[in-house]
Parts: sequence; C-alpha cells; structure tokens
Amino acid sequence: MSRENVKVIIWGLGAMGGGMAKMLLKKKGVEIVGVVGRGKKIGMSMFDLLGVERGDREDVLMGSMEDVITEKAADVVLLCTDSFTKNSFEKIQYCLERKINVVSSAEEMAYPMAQEPELTKEMDRIAKENGVTVLGTGINPGLIMDLLVVTLTGACEEVDSITARRVNSLSPFGPAVMEEQGIGITVDEFNKGVEEGTLAGHVGFPESVRMISDAIGWELSGDIKQSMEPIVSNVYRKSPYGEAKAGNVAGCAMKGFGYVDGEMKIEMDHPQQIEPELEGTNTGDYIIIKGTPDINMSITPEVPGGIGTIAMCVNMIPHVINSRPGVKTMLDLPVPRAIMGDMRDLIEG
Amino acid sequence: MSRENVKVIIWGLGAMGGGMAKMLLKKKGVEIVGVVGRGKKIGMSMFDLLGVERGDREDVLMGSMEDVITEKAADVVLLCTDSFTKNSFEKIQYCLERKINVVSSAEEMAYPMAQEPELTKEMDRIAKENGVTVLGTGINPGLIMDLLVVTLTGACEEVDSITARRVNSLSPFGPAVMEEQGIGITVDEFNKGVEEGTLAGHVGFPESVRMISDAIGWELSGDIKQSMEPIVSNVYRKSPYGEAKAGNVAGCAMKGFGYVDGEMKIEMDHPQQIEPELEGTNTGDYIIIKGTPDINMSITPEVPGGIGTIAMCVNMIPHVINSRPGVKTMLDLPVPRAIMGDMRDLIEG
Repeated sequence: MSRENVKVIIWGLGAMGGGMAKMLLKKKGVEIVGVVGRGKKIGMSMFDLLGVERGDREDVLMGSMEDVITEKAADVVLLCTDSFTKNSFEKIQYCLERKINVVSSAEEMAYPMAQEPELTKEMDRIAKENGVTVLGTGINPGLIMDLLVVTLTGACEEVDSITARRVNSLSPFGPAVMEEQGIGITVDEFNKGVEEGTLAGHVGFPESVRMISDAIGWELSGDIKQSMEPIVSNVYRKSPYGEAKAGNVAGCAMKGFGYVDGEMKIEMDHPQQIEPELEGTNTGDYIIIKGTPDINMSITPEVPGGIGTIAMCVNMIPHVINSRPGVKTMLDLPVPRAIMGDMRDLIEG
Repeated sequence: MSRENVKVIIWGLGAMGGGMAKMLLKKKGVEIVGVVGRGKKIGMSMFDLLGVERGDREDVLMGSMEDVITEKAADVVLLCTDSFTKNSFEKIQYCLERKINVVSSAEEMAYPMAQEPELTKEMDRIAKENGVTVLGTGINPGLIMDLLVVTLTGACEEVDSITARRVNSLSPFGPAVMEEQGIGITVDEFNKGVEEGTLAGHVGFPESVRMISDAIGWELSGDIKQSMEPIVSNVYRKSPYGEAKAGNVAGCAMKGFGYVDGEMKIEMDHPQQIEPELEGTNTGDYIIIKGTPDINMSITPEVPGGIGTIAMCVNMIPHVINSRPGVKTMLDLPVPRAIMGDMRDLIEG
C-alpha cells in the first residue's frame, strides 16, 4: 500500500527557501509540489533555479501566488520571504484561508505575540477557522537564544538570571546580510544608520526574551531594551561578499535586556562580524543560567545560521501538520529533531 | 476569583521524592495533598520527615497507598520509588485507575517501550481508559543524554553519528548509589558484580538510545550493546558517603552503543565516580553530533543529577496535566522549563 507523500510548497526561493528545497529533495516521503516567486523567474524550472539535477522527478515550475496556493494544494507552505510579521501577514492569511499549514522563517514570527499581538490574534482566528496551524521558527530566534535556554531551565529548581550569547561569523552570508549589518561602512555611517533606523542588525531579541520570560513565568517590567554598536576592525577583513578596511565596520554587536521588577534578568549578547578569527575571536553559542543549579553551556563553533534555519523549518514540518490548529510557537510543540527516516512515518493518523 | 491549586501526591519520600516536596513547597499555585510511604513512617508529618518548617500550612501525614491514592485525590502523583518499569507498573496502574496522572522518576520509564513494550501498551490502554497521562522523566535519562541530543539535531539537515558523554561526580550521592556503582570495592569484586549482574551502574542507555533513534528515524539493527568498567583510583578518595583506597574502585564507567545497518551510530559514554577532580578529571556533559552541520556542545560542570531529576519531574507537571491521555515520553510533550510563576497559569482550561 502506498501512502501519499507529504506535500510542500516553498514561497520564496532565495538563500533560505532554496536551501530548504535542496534539503527536501534529499528526504524520503516528502515532495515539493510548488514554488512561488515573482517577475521573470515565473515559469522557470525549480531545478534550474536551484542548480540541481532533476533526474526522473517531475518538473516544478515557479508560479505566482494565485496559481500555486490553491485550496489544500499542499500540506504545508514554507514561507521564506520576510523578517517582519506585518510584512508576512497577508501571505500567511492567503495560505491559511486555503487550508494549508504554514512554517514561516520570518524572525518576528518566532514569537509574534511579542510585537504584533493584534495580528497574532487575527492569524490565530483565521488558522482555527480553517483547521490549520502557523509556526515561525529558525535557528535564532527559534532555537539557540530562546528554545535551548528554556529547555535547559527545565533542569532548574529556580532561575535567577539568564545570559544568552551568540558570537558568530557572517562570512558565509551574502550581500543582503552585509548591508543589513553595516559591513564595510565607516563608524560615522554606522552611527547614522542606527540613529535613522536604517540598519537592521539582528531581528529577534524581543521575540527571544518574551519566549523565555513567558515560558518560565517571569512577568517583564517595562520594555525590552536593545543596543547596537559597531565592531570596528583593527585589520583588513574580507569575506566572499563583505570587505572592511581597518578602522571601518566589520560587524554589528547587538545586546538586548529583559527586566523583571526593574531588575535585569535576561541578557542577550549577539556580536556578528565577518572573519572574526582575524582578531582572535572564537565563535560560539553560550548559555549561562544562574540559579539552582547554575548551568554553563557552550557550543563551539556556533551552530551555523543558514543551515540551522533551513533545517529547523524543514524539521518542524511534521510537528506543524500534527498540531492542533492556531498560531503555535516552539514553546507549544514537541522538540525539533532531524528527519533521517521517511517523513510520512511522522505524520499522525 | 480564586482558582484551585494544582494538587500533587508524592509517592516515596526518599532523596528524590523528598527533594521534589521541598521544591514544591517553594512554588506558587501548587500544593502537596498527600505523601505515600510504608512502615513506621506512616502517620508522621511530611514536614518533620523533610525537616521543613510547616508554618501556617496544613499538615500532611504520610499514609498508605490505599489511604492516599483515592479517585481524583490529586492532579498528579510523583512516583519516586523505582528504577525499573516492571517494578513500578502496579503502582502506576493503581494511580491511573484512580484517574490521576503520573510522573515517574524510574529510569526505564523515560522510554518504557525500549525494554518493556508489552507493559507500555498495557499502561497506555489503562491511561487512555481513564483519561489520564503517564510520563517518565529525570535528568538522565530524560534530558542530558537524549532529549537535549534530539533537540540539537533539530538544527541539522543530516546526522551521521552521535556521541553523548556525561562525566559526573558521584560525591553528593548517598549510600544506595555508592553500593549500586561499586564505590570502594576491589577490582575483583567489581568484575564479579558485573558478571553476576549485581552491580546496577547507570540505568538508562537502552532508553536514551531508543529515544534518539526513534526521534530522528534511525532503525536500529540488533541490540543496544553496553559495557561496564571499573574506574580504578590511583589515590585515596573520600566523599560524604563513599571511600576508595588507591587501587580500588572509585567509580563505574559505562558505555552504550546503538547500531544502524550494522554501523555504530550512537555512542553513550558515562563515567561516574567520587571526587573526580583528585585525578584531574573535569566533569561535564558533552554532545558531539557529526552531520550537516557538526555540533559540539558542552556543559561544564555537568548538570547535577539529583537537583536535575527533582526539577525535571516537578517542571513537567503542567505538561502532563495538559497532555492528551496515554503513555507519553519527553519526545511527545513541549520542552521542559523552570516554573518561576504560578503553576495554575500553566494549566490549560
């Protein structure tokens, strides 16, 4: 007896969506039934766009939203187009109303109630009305500076304070990330960008801090504070898509702080730069919990951001299909896990 | 409007159960409504047994199973009496039939289908018939060498092999653990104990290996292999409850191996000893995943076993109450988390 494959549509075939497509093509019991894009790429073969041999697989042509996202056309859409909830809202709505589950890689969607409580309620209503689920996930937010922290507190009787530090290399990333993080610009330009709000830096601290505080039952007093500083290089640094002269900006150091009863309880520390090893910086992910007991975790080097986000979004597909309807977060669903077997075996009857 | 507290019964007030009681007494929105014991302790005050001031709380007297475990007498029983599924089965059945959820600290119960598939089916049937849930958890098995491994694979596109290493100190533990692990005996006595099966060592490798392999979809070929070696001390070592002369046994080094298609894919490495630092051994928890990407995690020092198990069992109470009925494992439920707020806020309507 043959069971039907899990059917996936990928919306946005950039670095993340393209990586998810390549990952899915290597997995059993799952197939890509559609890809959504815009402009000149419409009508082109997904395999050509990915640079992957089609072999004896059916071709998948990139199509418009209207052509590809039709009622129950797939079990899940992987939506890889945005960083912010408000920009992805209408796309999510479009999928949910066609009774298709959604996994979003938008950073804010990892905990949309943190900054968009009204849109979250609306998405939850639409999802439940249509009997489907929407989840935001990724490596960070989604795992390293939030879900992993929460999981480790599970071994604690009491928690006094939490520090999550992610020291990572931006060298593998492309031109969009170089621009968002201010790589190669002068310190003056960086400071102007911070002032005018044109430098994105890392998106996700309000989401990670709220995910942690809600999970363990800390009520935050006041807003989550954030700071952004340039990492000024003392040497010439060059990565495939980035370049910084000595004296210019090689990275962006962001911090975030959550307060309980006015006391700083959650600290996020996330310096991102190209070629960190040129100045002796060792990359890694660090979680420091002060409590009963203290827990000091490190992952060295850091879990790479690109592969990590691709894997998290794909690996959560079965949990999202199995979930009760509504807006879900990583706090609601079982732990993520690699899928080395047949994806159909993970779908509940 | 006052909501009712979450009601807990603790069965077995030894080091683990007693620790859970003390932890619960510090938490909001939860109360201990009964403690089950045997022999002379029946009729004694839980507070006296714990050495905790009662204050203005109602007294709780230790009672027999029959007196304390009555229909719906509590939301959950914390069962802290056994290491093996078969020894705890009848106690679990007794609670489930009285429509009370169960959290068991028995190591084998962390993944009972690994060694007791028939008893697991039977427990699942009884739990579902009575609309309640049973979960086994603890620090290990339960988190460090299994759930945490699984969670980290969530960031992986592919997994080639897994090593979980827990190098811990037994110094804080009592006489029962000293005896189970062979602390202080001669190497000949140790080897005889291994041969005759009288040395328990660590209980949990089959459970941890199966939890990992089932989670990521590896089908194990053949049995999980285990080995047990003495850690022979070169120096005199002494802990509160243990003592080993130079040349005698200061600990027990266990390994476990899981095979896929005949190839060793999962390695468990768990040397446990008193006073490891006397010979320069640094304790810690280590997870090494070879795959895409590689992940190298360490927690130093190790998450302590006693506090960790106490915290995991208590912290999972809300998830167990909220769960659909049946036998559940840590793979099925949302991630564990510390409870710093009111436990009632975590119970779904």
